[in-house]
Amino acid sequence: MTSDPTIRTNLRSGGRAARRAARAAPLDRALRPIRPGMSGGAYSPLSQADVEKIHHAALDALERIGLADAPQSGIDYLTAAGCTLGSDGRLRFPRALVEDTLARANRSVTLFSRDGQTDLDLSGTRVHYGTAGAAVHMVDVDGRAYRESTLQDLHDAARICDALDNIHFVQRPMVARDITDSRELDLNTIYACCSGTFKHIGTSFTDASFVAPAVEMLHMIAGGEEKWRERPFVSNSNCFVVPPMKFATESCLVMEECIRHGVPVLLLSAGMAGATAPSTIAGAIVQAVAECLAGLVYVNAVSPRHPAIFGTWPFGLDLRTGAMTGGSGEQALLTAGCAQMHRFYGLPGGAAAGIADAKLPDMQAGWEQMCSNVMAGLSGLNMVYEAAGMHASLLGFCHESLILGDDLIGQALRCVRGIEVTDETLALDQIAEVCLGGSGHYLGTAQTLSRMQADHVYPTLGDRTSPKEWEEKGKPDLLHKARQRKEEILSRRSPARLPPDLDRVIRERFPIHLPS
Amino acid sequence: MTSDPTIRTNLRSGGRAARRAARAAPLDRALRPIRPGMSGGAYSPLSQADVEKIHHAALDALERIGLADAPQSGIDYLTAAGCTLGSDGRLRFPRALVEDTLARANRSVTLFSRDGQTDLDLSGTRVHYGTAGAAVHMVDVDGRAYRESTLQDLHDAARICDALDNIHFVQRPMVARDITDSRELDLNTIYACCSGTFKHIGTSFTDASFVAPAVEMLHMIAGGEEKWRERPFVSNSNCFVVPPMKFATESCLVMEECIRHGVPVLLLSAGMAGATAPSTIAGAIVQAVAECLAGLVYVNAVSPRHPAIFGTWPFGLDLRTGAMTGGSGEQALLTAGCAQMHRFYGLPGGAAAGIADAKLPDMQAGWEQMCSNVMAGLSGLNMVYEAAGMHASLLGFCHESLILGDDLIGQALRCVRGIEVTDETLALDQIAEVCLGGSGHYLGTAQTLSRMQADHVYPTLGDRTSPKEWEEKGKPDLLHKARQRKEEILSRRSPARLPPDLDRVIRERFPIHLPS
Repeated sequence: MTSDPTIRTNLRSGGRAARRAARAAPLDRALRPIRPGMSGGAYSPLSQADVEKIHHAALDALERIGLADAPQSGIDYLTAAGCTLGSDGRLRFPRALVEDTLARANRSVTLFSRDGQTDLDLSGTRVHYGTAGAAVHMVDVDGRAYRESTLQDLHDAARICDALDNIHFVQRPMVARDITDSRELDLNTIYACCSGTFKHIGTSFTDASFVAPAVEMLHMIAGGEEKWRERPFVSNSNCFVVPPMKFATESCLVMEECIRHGVPVLLLSAGMAGATAPSTIAGAIVQAVAECLAGLVYVNAVSPRHPAIFGTWPFGLDLRTGAMTGGSGEQALLTAGCAQMHRFYGLPGGAAAGIADAKLPDMQAGWEQMCSNVMAGLSGLNMVYEAAGMHASLLGFCHESLILGDDLIGQALRCVRGIEVTDETLALDQIAEVCLGGSGHYLGTAQTLSRMQADHVYPTLGDRTSPKEWEEKGKPDLLHKARQRKEEILSRRSPARLPPDLDRVIRERFPIHLPS
Repeated sequence: MTSDPTIRTNLRSGGRAARRAARAAPLDRALRPIRPGMSGGAYSPLSQADVEKIHHAALDALERIGLADAPQSGIDYLTAAGCTLGSDGRLRFPRALVEDTLARANRSVTLFSRDGQTDLDLSGTRVHYGTAGAAVHMVDVDGRAYRESTLQDLHDAARICDALDNIHFVQRPMVARDITDSRELDLNTIYACCSGTFKHIGTSFTDASFVAPAVEMLHMIAGGEEKWRERPFVSNSNCFVVPPMKFATESCLVMEECIRHGVPVLLLSAGMAGATAPSTIAGAIVQAVAECLAGLVYVNAVSPRHPAIFGTWPFGLDLRTGAMTGGSGEQALLTAGCAQMHRFYGLPGGAAAGIADAKLPDMQAGWEQMCSNVMAGLSGLNMVYEAAGMHASLLGFCHESLILGDDLIGQALRCVRGIEVTDETLALDQIAEVCLGGSGHYLGTAQTLSRMQADHVYPTLGDRTSPKEWEEKGKPDLLHKARQRKEEILSRRSPARLPPDLDRVIRERFPIHLPS
């Protein structure tokens, strides 16, 4: 921190104006208190013995139970790799095969941004937060209402994410309900995201045959196939299983096609604990781990070391009603437990957090989103999906909430960064100096000022005024401020995330629905 | 879990009516998914080496810097114990004295409730959440306004806390601004709490001479001095230091008087990181630990093994404005780091969490309160003070927010409970049964139903409906529901937390301001 000599000099000079200037100057990226990819892992919900029990139970499940419903191509790949196909149609995975795959799988996965500014290095316990999901509604905060989500909403979400420091990737959070043709939907989803942000994009293809044309568009955006394959900036979220323990036949074909085209894949196992997965947290994790291990073997059988994210995404269920719930403590534990399994395997991993069951960005939404987001970060989850904007247990997406989520995640990231203990931060000399004949306080000391920007995360919209100031300012409303920020972002002349010439060529080639 | 044979039988019988009855029946306390005093500790923000560095820095600070401003009685106690009084008026603490105190201090502290139902066992990493503070305002949610807090507000807060399962103790969260005489304030504060709840109460005496009359009232409530001393149900929050490294002379005299009267003490060191404590998280923890170790030596010098809580309460500061802030990630780390130091010492400890900077119970309040509350719990903090209802960086208290805090803390407690890993919860047999010729899902299995109540925490006011149901229900507003619950609690004929005869005698003896 504070190794920038100009800041240090200014602070030491003691001049108020100089200090004020130093405070106002934007911090160099390297000096910012929080960054994408900070390392978590201080929180371990499972003991080492528990981790190993889960691992062995997952291996047992793969060996004894296996997975049904693989497509013929998958059966071919997997039996060639060493799986056995039972008379019950289930592929079973010998332990040695899984262990060999684990030993050989790609551990140094980077999810690329288009401009190289926000690449995601998924090694170790580096934590990244972003959007994801397939919401079908937009939350209208002013009207307190839900309406169908559109392509324009998706594009706006991408543009908003592009402007938010703590949203590190943009996986499609909602479905453009106004595009009825599913091929056009897939093409337009990618277009709406790529035209809104340079950050890494996640999508989810509905059919294997849509991958090739979409990748053609990606080649155009990248500047050719070679450049695309060098830095693929779109990954595919593959719901390759239908829990419990069945391959999703069509989605497996999509996955194979993605692998062929150099698209990194998210191996997404989204069991619902109590419905499609065991109701216990440990059991839901066992099944998710088993399914993702099967997926990992599959990917590596198709193409060794293809970049894949271990996507154990078990969801919570309200057992009273059978409805999904994502805002509970149980959900936070499911996600954090999965993150610990990723750490155990040393594999790039992702899971869902930040989901609100609340319908609106109210106090409940705040506590729900923070609980799982901060626990995911502390447990060192590489990819925290659905981290912002998600309401109604994933059914609704909200732009204002996304903007507030940037503040929320900022504080979660500060927690991930943790406590630095060095001679300087222990501050014993400073305590002695202040107490023994010094001023008796630390306000305005060089050490305090030098920490002001590099150590502290200040909210963008969160309010820290006193009741008196708050009243003088007209009692600003949080949601109103978020809406203002949204309007400000969206009214900006959008920077050319797609240069006009390229945009024209793409529009000539593909049925783009977004107005130009 | 689910060891209640009636529940198991009902579930196994498979009858829908029986299942419904089992679901509706209130759970036996022992079967509830969350309880006061569950053990945390899965989160360790500090490495073992860091913990030891902080410990040694604190010992160094006590030996080299020491504390100024002890009252004469304190100087006498502490020099007799082995401290040295310097020519600069500072008491310095030899390492051996501190280490001896640590070896002998009381580690098995219980904070008693009046009825024995909610005693707080502060051993190990057992976690308890409750109120605390000295807010001077009440937050009027409907009017979006702050007004001065009154004795009635305090009594109402105690009654509300009494009705909330996840508020485990009731330390006075606000000051009765309508009582101007400070002796009467102290007496009425205790009365307003004791007449509202049986849970353990915390107060804070303003002057040593007020302790004796208040304890006289406590003897009356307990049924005599002997019964009081056996199960003291009120503790005193002692701001015994004025950070940095000075004793609070008057408060030390209050502390000595409390010790004489058998009142457990909270050794509260409330430095502000960047003002009265170093601005670094590690430095603020070092100073707080040093100050509380000094307090511990003091308490044990007055009365060996007197019950004392290690109250490292460093607060965050917004260094841009110099105003306190309690809703930040830095605050959550300060508190969690302190909890880890308590664990290292094996001492009963407490710190502040759950503070919102937000003025109202909005989304910001939700994320702020959850962030530090869940991290405090995961780090195994014995006493999580200020956990609910606190707004405007401790200046305002809010009854509606307190009620919502009960829901929020419920989810935090679920996280503290963690993930159970046993053969049963790993669920391998169940996965095999469901997948291999079974129903293909886990809905309604005996294992799922048996976990429904014992494993899952359901929100009281938090909303989990679908957008459709929510609309059909008239889009219920969270704050409106909280207000309704408040009115419902306060309109109940209060159970006699003070029997009428006792109440009359107390009112004859003391100037009670609360209407009878």
